[in-house]
Amino acid sequence: MGNVPDAVKHCLSYEQVIRDYPWLAQWLQEGQVSSLPVAAINTYPEFVKVVEVGPRDGLQNEKEIVPTGVKIQLIDMLSEAGLPVIEATSFVSSKWVPQVAAGAAEVAVFASASETFSRKNINCSIAESMQRFEELIQSAREAHIPVRGYVSCALGCPYEGQILPAKVTEVAKKLYGLGCHEISLGDTIGVGTPGSMAKLLESVLKEVPNHVIAVHCHDTYGQALANVLMALQMGISVVDSSVAGLGGCPYAKGASGNVATEDLLYMLHGLGINTGVDLSKVMSAGDFICKALNRKTNSKVAQANCQP
Amino acid sequence: MGNVPDAVKHCLSYEQVIRDYPWLAQWLQEGQVSSLPVAAINTYPEFVKVVEVGPRDGLQNEKEIVPTGVKIQLIDMLSEAGLPVIEATSFVSSKWVPQVAAGAAEVAVFASASETFSRKNINCSIAESMQRFEELIQSAREAHIPVRGYVSCALGCPYEGQILPAKVTEVAKKLYGLGCHEISLGDTIGVGTPGSMAKLLESVLKEVPNHVIAVHCHDTYGQALANVLMALQMGISVVDSSVAGLGGCPYAKGASGNVATEDLLYMLHGLGINTGVDLSKVMSAGDFICKALNRKTNSKVAQANCQP
Repeated sequence: MGNVPDAVKHCLSYEQVIRDYPWLAQWLQEGQVSSLPVAAINTYPEFVKVVEVGPRDGLQNEKEIVPTGVKIQLIDMLSEAGLPVIEATSFVSSKWVPQVAAGAAEVAVFASASETFSRKNINCSIAESMQRFEELIQSAREAHIPVRGYVSCALGCPYEGQILPAKVTEVAKKLYGLGCHEISLGDTIGVGTPGSMAKLLESVLKEVPNHVIAVHCHDTYGQALANVLMALQMGISVVDSSVAGLGGCPYAKGASGNVATEDLLYMLHGLGINTGVDLSKVMSAGDFICKALNRKTNSKVAQANCQP
Repeated sequence: MGNVPDAVKHCLSYEQVIRDYPWLAQWLQEGQVSSLPVAAINTYPEFVKVVEVGPRDGLQNEKEIVPTGVKIQLIDMLSEAGLPVIEATSFVSSKWVPQVAAGAAEVAVFASASETFSRKNINCSIAESMQRFEELIQSAREAHIPVRGYVSCALGCPYEGQILPAKVTEVAKKLYGLGCHEISLGDTIGVGTPGSMAKLLESVLKEVPNHVIAVHCHDTYGQALANVLMALQMGISVVDSSVAGLGGCPYAKGASGNVATEDLLYMLHGLGINTGVDLSKVMSAGDFICKALNRKTNSKVAQANCQP
């Protein structure tokens, strides 16, 4: 037992979070939320649209290049299961406004609620990104192509730490005004809790209708499903997820994947919420991609069922 | 790509759940809950008592015998962090009613809401177990030692499948009547969702006061924190958890550990709920025991902080 104190000190990992995210440490130690909206709306949505982002967010973060055939088969299997699958990646950088591809089903724009993250992720300030999105969204609308907006760092930023709900609201409202049909609020580094999710939505939903807002929760701190539950209670009915919990974010240190589609469906169906998605088929798709990439699933539902 | 269909079939794991838990499959596919209580009580508890069960539930399931010194150091570290630590194991078998140890801080009795699980776990029927608990609780009360009751399989049984809330309520009410000061409802195999948790508590809280009830959620299907959130919203303020997510259940196939204490504290503190527990010290304890047992932590909070 003599070496135990050293072993403990060697990975006194909470020190890192205190150093890297002082706002978070303070928050976690003190508890800052005095009165939360337990339920703004006293019913759950009857139907939740689950948006599958695994083939985009997940596969782009794999170390090896994923063969096109594997990606296509994955998308086919997920679509067959009843999931709308997001594939488009229309990053807007400072030097380049992409043309809207003729015949595209949907275009995506990636905004951030963090100034620093915006500069590192899409190489321009938030204000500059909005100017360029305006151009892009205008041309998409002329071609009758819907545009989905993303707001990253909605519950915290790897560079700036705490992000105020008012800042997220400002960005979401702007995207809505520009014509985005759906705006996905991303907890990019997965630091949010049901407490911060409630505070965020309380602010955003004053400016943007609930049917326009989606939540996109990474599970880095294990809070994703609880955060989604809180969002559902506040009237949100669109949730992003990733088969097998694929993904992460190349620009955000330590960010693990999105909430696993399998685990999300398990919760939604258990709440009696209709999704139109066949969980069985999603599990086959998850099994397929994990074998193809030689990786372990991050879905607890899949893990539970694969045990001998 | 020619071998993909075979690979998929090789682990079409959802088939197993359909075979083993037909009630669950039906439930998950159809959604059976039409109106859930989003919030029975419109506030969260100001204080939640987190009960640490890792040293008991966790260590008893390790393959190797854990040295007493390691166990004692773990308990010391967790107590130092501010956690009440459950150590007592007073199983009542068909042949044996344990004496109440003089000076014990607390005695525990293990009931089940499933007849089959009761017979396999404690070798007697539910009714027989209650007769024996009566004797034990009586002698504990005479010695002024509080008795904590456990109800396993509260949200499902590995042998019987679905367990009706009325059955759990009956067992919990009986334990309360016998004099248990606290009754912990255990989702032993972790199949519950916030939907089934809501239905369960709606039933139980009609017969037993909310301050007497604790929830004990295994994270097998990734639902534990969401289930706890639902329980908090329904007035529950005692939650069992296990440092590093240690544990499982030797009698329940595929059951993973309890919800990790670290992840639970992260959520509770993020909700602004006071626990009196120092998360930093719990993380040190989790790091210590994982190194001592040479196992990986199941806490996402700990995983996030140990990444390079």
